[in-house]
Parts: sequence; structure tokens; C-alpha cells
Amino acid sequence: MEGVDHLAFERNKAQFDVDDMKIVWAGSREEFELSDRISRLVASDPAFRKDNRVMLDRKELFKNTLRKAAYAWKRIIELRLNEREASKLRSFVDQPAFTDLHWGMFVPAIKGQSTDEQQEKWLPLAYKMQIIGCYAQTELGHGSNVQGLETTATFDPKTDEFVIHSPTLTSSKWWPGGLGKMSTHAVVYARLITDGQDHGVHGFIVQLRSLDDHFPLPGITVGDIGMKFGNAAYNSMDNGVLRFDHVRIPRTQMLMRFSQVTREGKYMHSSVPRQLVYGTMVYVRQAIVSDASIALSRAVCIATRYSAVRRQFGSHNGGVETQVIDYKTQQARLFPLLASAYAFRFVGEWLKWLYTDVTQRLQANDFSTLPEAHACTAGLKSLTTTATADGIEECRKLCGGHGYLCSSGLPELFAVYVPACTYEGDNTVLLLQVARHLIKTISQLGSENKPVGTTAYLARLEQLMQYHSDVKKAEDWLKPNAVLGAFEARAARMSVACAQKLSKFTNPEEGFQEFSADLVQAALAHCQLIVVSKFIEKLQQDILGRGVKQQLEVLSGIYALFLLHKHVGDFLSTGCINPEQGSLANEQLRSLYSQVRPNAIALVDAFNYTDHYLGSILGRYDGNVYPKLYEEAWKDPLNDSVIPDGFKEYIQPLLRQQLRNARL
Amino acid sequence: MEGVDHLAFERNKAQFDVDDMKIVWAGSREEFELSDRISRLVASDPAFRKDNRVMLDRKELFKNTLRKAAYAWKRIIELRLNEREASKLRSFVDQPAFTDLHWGMFVPAIKGQSTDEQQEKWLPLAYKMQIIGCYAQTELGHGSNVQGLETTATFDPKTDEFVIHSPTLTSSKWWPGGLGKMSTHAVVYARLITDGQDHGVHGFIVQLRSLDDHFPLPGITVGDIGMKFGNAAYNSMDNGVLRFDHVRIPRTQMLMRFSQVTREGKYMHSSVPRQLVYGTMVYVRQAIVSDASIALSRAVCIATRYSAVRRQFGSHNGGVETQVIDYKTQQARLFPLLASAYAFRFVGEWLKWLYTDVTQRLQANDFSTLPEAHACTAGLKSLTTTATADGIEECRKLCGGHGYLCSSGLPELFAVYVPACTYEGDNTVLLLQVARHLIKTISQLGSENKPVGTTAYLARLEQLMQYHSDVKKAEDWLKPNAVLGAFEARAARMSVACAQKLSKFTNPEEGFQEFSADLVQAALAHCQLIVVSKFIEKLQQDILGRGVKQQLEVLSGIYALFLLHKHVGDFLSTGCINPEQGSLANEQLRSLYSQVRPNAIALVDAFNYTDHYLGSILGRYDGNVYPKLYEEAWKDPLNDSVIPDGFKEYIQPLLRQQLRNARL
Repeated sequence: MEGVDHLAFERNKAQFDVDDMKIVWAGSREEFELSDRISRLVASDPAFRKDNRVMLDRKELFKNTLRKAAYAWKRIIELRLNEREASKLRSFVDQPAFTDLHWGMFVPAIKGQSTDEQQEKWLPLAYKMQIIGCYAQTELGHGSNVQGLETTATFDPKTDEFVIHSPTLTSSKWWPGGLGKMSTHAVVYARLITDGQDHGVHGFIVQLRSLDDHFPLPGITVGDIGMKFGNAAYNSMDNGVLRFDHVRIPRTQMLMRFSQVTREGKYMHSSVPRQLVYGTMVYVRQAIVSDASIALSRAVCIATRYSAVRRQFGSHNGGVETQVIDYKTQQARLFPLLASAYAFRFVGEWLKWLYTDVTQRLQANDFSTLPEAHACTAGLKSLTTTATADGIEECRKLCGGHGYLCSSGLPELFAVYVPACTYEGDNTVLLLQVARHLIKTISQLGSENKPVGTTAYLARLEQLMQYHSDVKKAEDWLKPNAVLGAFEARAARMSVACAQKLSKFTNPEEGFQEFSADLVQAALAHCQLIVVSKFIEKLQQDILGRGVKQQLEVLSGIYALFLLHKHVGDFLSTGCINPEQGSLANEQLRSLYSQVRPNAIALVDAFNYTDHYLGSILGRYDGNVYPKLYEEAWKDPLNDSVIPDGFKEYIQPLLRQQLRNARL
Repeated sequence: MEGVDHLAFERNKAQFDVDDMKIVWAGSREEFELSDRISRLVASDPAFRKDNRVMLDRKELFKNTLRKAAYAWKRIIELRLNEREASKLRSFVDQPAFTDLHWGMFVPAIKGQSTDEQQEKWLPLAYKMQIIGCYAQTELGHGSNVQGLETTATFDPKTDEFVIHSPTLTSSKWWPGGLGKMSTHAVVYARLITDGQDHGVHGFIVQLRSLDDHFPLPGITVGDIGMKFGNAAYNSMDNGVLRFDHVRIPRTQMLMRFSQVTREGKYMHSSVPRQLVYGTMVYVRQAIVSDASIALSRAVCIATRYSAVRRQFGSHNGGVETQVIDYKTQQARLFPLLASAYAFRFVGEWLKWLYTDVTQRLQANDFSTLPEAHACTAGLKSLTTTATADGIEECRKLCGGHGYLCSSGLPELFAVYVPACTYEGDNTVLLLQVARHLIKTISQLGSENKPVGTTAYLARLEQLMQYHSDVKKAEDWLKPNAVLGAFEARAARMSVACAQKLSKFTNPEEGFQEFSADLVQAALAHCQLIVVSKFIEKLQQDILGRGVKQQLEVLSGIYALFLLHKHVGDFLSTGCINPEQGSLANEQLRSLYSQVRPNAIALVDAFNYTDHYLGSILGRYDGNVYPKLYEEAWKDPLNDSVIPDGFKEYIQPLLRQQLRNARL
């Protein structure tokens, strides 16, 4: 049956043009063509095959990664790819590598935090990969609390050097990717000390290894921190540990864009506004949101296709069984995740716009939208990464037992993805930041500080406190205003309820601690409103064709009403809707599931993922799952020999003996 | 600091005697002493060390497992352990092995489904491990729907044999543990065909491999199905694939306790009631519930101890930072899981009683409680395994970044545990079975079939439909009746609402399909009521000392009110409570978190797990986390050499070249 498309009958059902949707998903025709071209390039090159990597031991896997990274670099040069194309290529290679940190953290840190002079020196070296860099911030005892880092950089005016030192065990740098075995240099964050005074945490470029023989330089202890969650996954990365024993670097290797130490040892701020750092944070987090939509859509693509292939029960007369995707319980778990993938895609697109907007304002010295933009990206990072991690695992379960096989691709996808819930801000800590911003915004209502951007709805607080949904029949829930009204009122009232509780404390910080779990819920409600409203805004774009628009309306409805159903307690207890309206939303949700069903396969085809990138037998484009699963099994090293290693040594003697003295 | 107990100051805070709680957790002093003795025996034996297993490749890991299994068997013989002790020992070895299926599925299948004569032949061979058995039910294309299995066993009257055959690719046996490389025999489930007639699925003992050289017998294709989710985890198990090409076995190897085929080829039922099979299912599922409490408690123990060790933020004047366990957001995520571990332990204990009760009734030909017992165990299997899988992952996240390291023990615990959500009944399919039972029970109200056991509350349906909580202040939620009343009313009303929706369909099955997602929710509400009520019943036991009882009251309150908070939408929309009462429950919950805080470490010490069994640096009894994490890192194979394999070959040339033709 090689070459047959087992899902063709599903594809024929689609009520829209999948090619149109591919453009919408990609964001533009140009973006689609770029991704399409680069992903096929990677998929068709045998050097990038990834099918045996889960069977490799740590050393073999790491060597395999070095080979691929070097080869990717070679191809980038040969094909004269630009920075954007090169980055796409690395992402389609789909194997975490030290180069991710070099390009994704080391280079941006130098660009964002060093002076023009420093950039002139370091960037060409980094761009040509004559040095390999990493980003050494987190310490063994210090993750979320960056201000609590212990590593010190003490200025020695006699030699014009900084002395980088790890004063305690817990100050060991711990986790930085690319540090363990590969990086020649690092941007190291350390407490700046001049003349006995601690100026807080600053960044420094520190050479770690010799460019001649790659051995660690004197005073530097460095290594890999060991195995991490999952098969292959991040074990292809050399997350590292690093200790400094009074390592000296030239004064000029402090990143001096925002503040500097003079030859005389004087610490001073530059004229560049520090807020620019937050611009970088907005950038990094919008990228994380965009990655969330990719990771979730990969899992959803696998689970949707396999749900159409797989059949269980439902045959009472020897005929074929029912496709699993036709079960309402399967739809009620799978389709909200499909809708979430699209929702996260569009909110990610909007965040790209927000980043551009913030950057332009910063360049014009307008910092007014920064706190809101910062809170908003923090919240969306938290919401999308949590939902994606949970969603991938849910997709794995939706594939039944076979989702547990590495050949399903889902275990590795999950293990590679979950760190996103922790890095770049722990998801709970981030929601508390959002909550702080909401409480502040509410406290300033009526003052000159009008709420902006995603908090603008709070300006209508009086009206929102009076809100009662006017939904009377299920279809009323299809109206964008019905949805937005309920989500705005719910979010506003939850924030106000928290603000009222906090106002009873003489020490507001104490109140904030006491009610932090409620604050997290209020922040989440606010963030869900953002995603819901950006999806609705997307529907209003003129560029959407009719067929595509109809599908997105269905998905937008599913996303909103699924959230409403999941958090109906919030909506009821704040009095935004009544139980009948909640039940009508549920009714409408069921109807939307039926509408999405015939389009489900085409909606995941629109992601345009190659079989190479998906890396899943269950998610194969042609649906030819069982023969390929069967074929794949025999590749396991255990099947190399009929009799497994250890059988003759340990088990055969046991089978042959008469164990007369056993009590069993 | 070796030998210092870093958590002593936490242990000193406890307001109860941890030794008393150990007995309560274990179920009895005798059970405690048994577990204590066997777990120390395993922990102190270097042959059972498991600290390097995540670094082994598949073949090495499998060999390591064979060595441990053989050694465990040797120790069992030497120490003259009885069956219960031997089973404990295998579980404390804590590495999935083919012996799990031999003892846990093969032997029980023979015991439960074969005649006395068959048992006499096969059990001694199995008990002495002269043969190794597995349980071959699931097929490549057939998991949940056992009646859809395709393998055939066709009787050949000429030779008095069955011909076992795999007619299609999808009929390949797929997943059975111990099948891939180790089993000499299997209980194979196949469609029994006599004289062209299909009698449905029956069990057969089939020899797979030669007892001389362990090679597969003619007509048998067998192998391992490949890598599975996670580091080590189930990769120590040879889950297998098996195809039959007209394999002949003697007629006497059909398991003939319930039905048989005579020499003449006549199919007939025996006088033994088939319902006894359901008794076995009750047994297997109560064991799964008991395992859930163990797996969840291990994760909770790790997360709780590390939350007391770890400090982040909260220091404004250079003093020590705040212990993470003191943050309310941490408490609101961690303590409900601690309470769940205890709740699942006690409901598991009760299920043991239920199994005994059902067995006695079956022996007296009383089948009246069987449907209820069957539904109840199915539902509790589903509830506890889903909550445990999610709970382990939540505990991993509660450990921050370090939870992602294999040395935290949590990745492996998760990967080993999650299959429990799928095997022995997919969790959604099981809840639908519960829902079916509830709908049937409701439809029979008023008839002679009175609801029994865990559905007995439905007899008070009229009263429950009138129920309104009378809670007026937060402490009212501490009253068992306030909690039980609300949970009973909610569960009853959700079931009734479903029954009403179904009654509008002329074809009830169609209604069941359409509203299956609601039915799942109703079933879950019913199962949560069971767990809540069994925890409350436990509190009434006379044997509990005062200190212990107080702690369990707090945990019972947390378990119930956390569920109420999480599902407050159910309680509000069914009108069982009003928003004020929901908010009072939340207030009481916060107060209970504060009460459990000083006792948290002692409450996880009560599980009495050795450091060997926990297998987690973050969860070490002595709390000496950071030095040990640091020490552990250096053991990774990547740290064997300063320069990693592949560096000179792939990366060094790249660093040294001037890449003048790059566009970057």
C-alpha cells in the first residue's frame, strides 16, 4: 500500500481550501514559502535523519548532534542563507544543540547589552563561529531570583581587570546550554563589586576554553550537569556547570551599554535608558509564544491524524469499527487543543506587532506602554507554555497506548517542550507579575494613568461590574460581543475582588502573599481574555477568504467556549453569566465540534509539516500507520540478536535449576 | 556536612508522632514492618543500585534488568521469602522487568481461568520459574475493544489441536510485557473457532520459545516493539510483538475453567459462573489504585522535601531567602497533592475490603453487588491514575528547573507511571462505564433494584434534588456532613441531568454518544464523592490516635475543598452551593494550608521511603541537596573526557576556518 493516501477520504471532506489556510497559518505567502522551502531542504537530506536518535546513548547522541550542527553550518554557508533562513534551518533540524544558545542568547546578549565598540570586536567572531558562546545566568541555588545571584566580579584597579569568582557551591553556574562541553566564551552574570561596593548583577564576557586545544582555562571548572528528562530530547544539549576560582578578565569585557566601570574604578550609568532591556524580554517571550503554537500544533497534528486512522468499538455486525475521531469524548479533548494551536499562533503574530510597536516607542523615549507590554508578554508566555505542555501530553494520551512509543514522536516532543514552563520566568511567578500590574492598574483608575493596550477594558470598570450576559439561546454565544463581554467582566471582577481583599491589609505585600493563589487565577483570566480577543480580531482581517474565515470562526468559538466551560465556576461566581447560559455555551460547543469534524484533517494539514519534522509514525501524512509501526519495531537494538545479552549469563541457569528449597 | 540532617528543624515542628502515622499509612503494624524490612534489605544491597541506569543504552539497560531479576530471585530463594514478601522485594527493586508480568499477569490468569487439572500442570512450572510467561491480549490494531481481537484459534478435530494464527498485520500481538525477548510461554487471547463458528475471545497457553536454546518455535515471529517514553523507565521491559503462522497447540491448552472444547470439537460452558472473571478485574484495579497512592506519594515526598530546602526571593536585606514551601502559590499546588496521596491510600485500603467482600459473595453465588463493585473500581482506577500522572508532573514543575534533571527522580517516575492511564482500561472509556451504571441505577430507582454500595446515596434522590448547602461561615466546611451533602447533591444532579437529556432520544445509544462528554463529567463527580466519603469514614476509625487524627482531618478537608474549588462550576450550576459558600470554602482551604505547613515534612516522612526507593537527590531524607547534585553531575559519561567525541572531527575545523563566503 506504499504511496496510497489512507487519509484521502478525510481530505476530500474539507469545506475550505487548505492552501489558503497554509498562508494564514504561516502569516504571509512569503513566510509560507520560506518555511516550505527550508523544511523540505532539511527533510530531503539524509544527513539530518533523526529516526535512530532515541536509541543512542548520551555520548553517541552528543556526537550525532555535533555532526548535525557542523553540517547545518556547512549547508548554511554553501547555500548562502541569510540569518532568517539559517535560523529556520536550525529549527527544522529539530535537535537541541549548543548552537541554539550561541545564536539565540549569546549573540543577542552582546547585541543588546554591549557598546558599539564591544560589538565591533565580538560580533564578527561570533557570526563566523570562530568562538562559541553561551549565556551563564542561572546558578545551582538561584533560578527565578536573578537579583540573588552569588557569583562576583570584583574590579581590581591595579591591573584594570575584573576577578570573576564563585564564592559558594550554590553560586556554581548551572543549566546554561552549550556550557558543559562546547562554549569557548560565555556571557556571565555576576555581582559587580568596585571598591567594596555591590552594584548588583551585570553581564561580562568571559573566555572559558582555549581556542587552541579547547581545554578549560586556569581557574575554570566546567562540565555537563547530567541526564535530563526524556529520550534524546535535551540530552543532545550540554547544559553545564561552571565554577570560577578568581578568574581575571580585562575590564573592557564588562557589557557596558547601560552602565560601566571606568579605568579609575568608578561605576556609572550610561545615557542609554535601562528600559531597553525590557524590550529584549518582550522579544524573547514573543518568540516563546510563537514556539508554543508550533509545539502544540505538531502534537495536535499527530493526534488528529491518528484519531482518524484508529478505529475502536462501534461495530456490531463485523463491519469496520468507528474512527476514534468520531467519538464525542475524543472531540471534546482534541478539538479545543486544535483551536488553541490556532489561537496561540495568532496571539503570537500579534505579539510580534507589539514588539515592533514597543521598540519604536522606546527609540522615541516613550516608555508609557512598556509596563503593560511587559506584563502582557509575561502572562502570555505563562498561559501558552502551560497549555502547550499539558496539551502535548493530552495528545499523547489521545493516541492510546501507541502514544507511549518513541516512534509516535510524542514522548520526545513533550520532554523537549516542558522546560518552557520554567525557563525565562517560572509560569506561576510570571502570573504574579501580571497580577501586580492589574492591581496597580485598578488602583490608578480615575487618575491620569489611563489603562492602555490589553488592560484598556478596565477603563470601563463601572460598566463591567454591572454586566449580565444577555445570551438567550445557544447561537447567541457565536456573537463576538457576547464572548468578549463575558470574558471582560469575569477578568475585571476577579481582579477587583483581589484588589478589595488586599485593601484590607495595612501591609499590602502581606495581602499579596496571602491571596497569591487568587491573584494567579485573576491574572490567568486576564490573559485568557487577551487570547480570545486577539483571535476575534484576527477574524476581522480583510485578507481572509470566505472558506478560511468560516473555519477560523468555528475554531475561535471553540477556544472561547471551551475556556468558558472549563472555568465556568469563575463566570458563575462573579455573576457574569447564569447556569442556563453556561449550559447554552456547552450546547453551542458541541455543535461547533460537529462543524470542525469534517475539516479536522485539513486544518492540521495547513500547518504544512513534513513527515521528517513531525517525526511520528502515528502522524504520517499518508496515514499508513500500522505497517510502518511494525517495520519500525525491528530496528530496536534489542532485536539485533535473538537471544538478548545477559540471558545466558543470568537467566538460563535459573530456568534450568530445580528450586527445591523455595517456599513458593 | 555529611551526616547532618538539614531538615531536622522542619521535623521538629511536627505536631504529631510520625511513627504512628507510618502505621496508619502502611495499613497495619505488620504491613509496616514487612515493608520496612524488605525496603531496607533492597536499599542496603549494592546489587540493587539504580543510580546509573538512565545513562545506559537499551541493551545495557536490559542486561542490567536481567541481572537484577535473577539476583532478586536468588535472594528470594536464599531468604526463603513467601509470595507476599517476594512481591514486595520485586516492587522495591523498582525497575520494570519481565518477571512483573510473569507473576502479575501470567500466574493469575492461569489461576483464575484454568481448571484444577491445568493448574496442577502449569503452576508448579511457573512458580519455580522453569517457564517464563506473559499475557498476550492487546493487538497492534486493538486495545480497548477486546472483543474486536483478530487472532484466531481454530480447532482441528483431526489432530485434537488448536491452530493459532494471525490473519492480518493488525492482529499482531503488540505491547505484552516480557514477550519481546524473555517469555517461553504466553497466555494468548484469540477468537475460538470450532467447525466454522466464532465463539468469541478465549485464552490459550502457547509455548513461544524452545526451553533448550530459547529460540522462537516454528511459526512464531517475535521481537521487541522498540523504545518507549522516558529515561530507563519501561525500556527495561521487553514489550513485544508476536505473529502466529498456523501454530499448533494441544486442545488441552485452552484455559477451560469457564468454557471448553471437547475432543469432538463441541463448545460448551462449564458450571462455573462467568461473573468470577469480574472478580479478578476488581482485584487488578484495586491493586492499580494502591499503586497510584504509592507513585503519587513518592513524587509528593520529593517535592515537599525540596520545597523546604529550596529558597527563592523574599530577602530584602541580604538575609536568607524564603523557603519555597512558605509561598501560598506553592502550598496551593503541593498540599492538595499531599492530601490526594493520603486519600488514594485510604480508598485503596477500602477497595481491598471490597474485593474480599465481592469474592465472598461470588463464592456464595450472590452476584447482586458485582455491577456496582465493578463500576466503582473502574471509576476509581480512572480517577486515581489520571490524578497521579498529572500530580507527578506537577510535582516535577514544583521543583523548578532541577526537576528536569534525571537525578531528581521525577522524570523516570512520570514516564514509568503514565501507562497506568491507558492500560487495564483507558481512563475515559472507564468513566463511560461508570456513567452507564449510574444512568441504569437512576432508571431503576423505585423498582426492586435498590442502589447499593457507593450508589446507595441515589436512593435519597428526592432529598438530594432539594438540597441547598447551609454553610454560613468558613468553619462550617469542616463538618463532614456539609462536605458530603454538597458532593452527593452535585453528583446526583449531574447524573440526573444526563439521564434527562438521554431520555429525549428514541435511540438511547445515540443520546449516550452525543452527551458522552457530560456523562464523563457526571461519572467523575460520582467517583470524587467516593474518595471524599471514604476519607471521612477513615477518620471515624477508633484506632487513630489523637495527633494522627487531627492531621488526617486537615488533609481530608484539603482534599474535599480543593476538589470543590476546582469544580466549583459544577456545584454552582447545579445549585448545591451559592457563590458566597464557594468563597467560604476557599477561605477555609487557605486556613487548612497553614495548618498543614508545619507538619508537611513529617507527613511525607510517614511514607517511610528509603533514599534508594525514592531515587531522588531533591528528595533526600537529609535535605543535603546541592552538594549531592553537584557531585552527581560529574558522573555523566559526557564528563569522562574533557573534549567530547566528535569535537575534533566536526567542530574544530569549523572554528579554525575563516568563513569569508558567509552572508551572515
